Amino acid sequence: MSYFAAMSKPLILVTNDDGIVAPGIRVLVDIVRAYGDVVVVAPDSPQSGKGHAVTLEEPLRINKVNVFPGLEAYECNGTPVDCVKLAKHIVLKDRKVDLCVSGINHGSNASINIIYSGTMSAAMEASLEGVNSIGFSLLNFAFDADFNPCRPYVDKIIRDVMERGIPHSRLLNVNIPYPENGRIRGIRVCKQAEGRWREEFMEAVDPRGQKYYWLTGVFQVDDHSEDTDIWALQNNYVSVVPSGHDLTTYASIPGLKYLEV
Amino acid sequence: MSYFAAMSKPLILVTNDDGIVAPGIRVLVDIVRAYGDVVVVAPDSPQSGKGHAVTLEEPLRINKVNVFPGLEAYECNGTPVDCVKLAKHIVLKDRKVDLCVSGINHGSNASINIIYSGTMSAAMEASLEGVNSIGFSLLNFAFDADFNPCRPYVDKIIRDVMERGIPHSRLLNVNIPYPENGRIRGIRVCKQAEGRWREEFMEAVDPRGQKYYWLTGVFQVDDHSEDTDIWALQNNYVSVVPSGHDLTTYASIPGLKYLEV
Repeated sequence: MSYFAAMSKPLILVTNDDGIVAPGIRVLVDIVRAYGDVVVVAPDSPQSGKGHAVTLEEPLRINKVNVFPGLEAYECNGTPVDCVKLAKHIVLKDRKVDLCVSGINHGSNASINIIYSGTMSAAMEASLEGVNSIGFSLLNFAFDADFNPCRPYVDKIIRDVMERGIPHSRLLNVNIPYPENGRIRGIRVCKQAEGRWREEFMEAVDPRGQKYYWLTGVFQVDDHSEDTDIWALQNNYVSVVPSGHDLTTYASIPGLKYLEV
Repeated sequence: MSYFAAMSKPLILVTNDDGIVAPGIRVLVDIVRAYGDVVVVAPDSPQSGKGHAVTLEEPLRINKVNVFPGLEAYECNGTPVDCVKLAKHIVLKDRKVDLCVSGINHGSNASINIIYSGTMSAAMEASLEGVNSIGFSLLNFAFDADFNPCRPYVDKIIRDVMERGIPHSRLLNVNIPYPENGRIRGIRVCKQAEGRWREEFMEAVDPRGQKYYWLTGVFQVDDHSEDTDIWALQNNYVSVVPSGHDLTTYASIPGLKYLEV
């Protein structure tokens, strides 16, 4: 660490996908403000399931808001990824971000859900810019879910990552179980389980007599090995999956050479 | 192939992210209809950059449209991933899809763009359901881009995949160069290049005096090795990257075990 870096406090960007007034982001801000200067840039409305969407067809706006006492905070009308882009290029233009944390999401982003998740896509976007990034999600969708049992684990992971970094990666997908008795057993570093959504669209008719569909579904785990995030969560451990953005399936390359001309 | 399968024509789902009236999807439909029964389910408006977004906060609608003579086609008010979900669960409820093709996108989805791309996310969604899927993109954004030089390559890749499959993967990210002289040199199977967007938000003021931002940027390649999609495209080869949805960075797991408690 350089002399200058040792003097200045780390700069921490906080975002989420449930929107700037969700309880989860407030918990995360509470925890992370012990570790540096915190700036919040988060969506002005729920953005769950927005994946890595960016807004290309519409203008984006950012407004300073007074949501977190004593902290610089902005709401944005775009997606979680838009928030991170605006944070980097407009809000924090000449400042180097040391850590990005996203969440705490109300609901799981384990297994394949990383791909649909605005929470994780925001963290991934920051990681693409070279910033160590962590997405946190609690396995409870409720607005009034109890975040207290997860606080020491979120705190420990942030502290450890700030001290020791993330080898060979810049992104962690952290999911936190919600055991009925509140007793989380520990932390497991694991891989993303194979799984998928079994969709069941709700079908209904609007006041004009037109049919519409509403997306819903049940998550189906296709992978029951003990080294997965799903296993960890089912056994009341916090799951930590180091994640990246290279989607190449290298094992397929040799067998596909027949395509070359 | 079973006797029954040998008798019935393959069922091919076509989608895109530029919308059902974009020229690129018409070219793709033209090519693919030689290989089976084609059903089109595509967005009713441009959905570029929507990544793996799904629509959770609003109802979805699908309407039959007469866009492709003699073909069953539907437009949907959701994202490209919504289109694939609705295709599977509503439009093609009791029918097995044999292949999903997405595109031909107007613009590159090479390198890291796979993450932002609605075209590729639609194909990935179908691959999650066990369907061999291919996203095609042409390196020209223009509405009136000339798709003729790319047709034989798109045709060859579809034919080969239908005959021989995709080993160890169910998803191909195919990008097609746009050389000035129209001379594409061939096909290369490669990995996703490392790269990122250098954003440059356009900043302006609306009629009410409020500032707004519009996302734009320049793509920066950080990886110049010869086994990448970017290299292939720069050398006027079609790039084929076998792709997946497991984002785990396995190399990071041992070094992160210190987090476990």
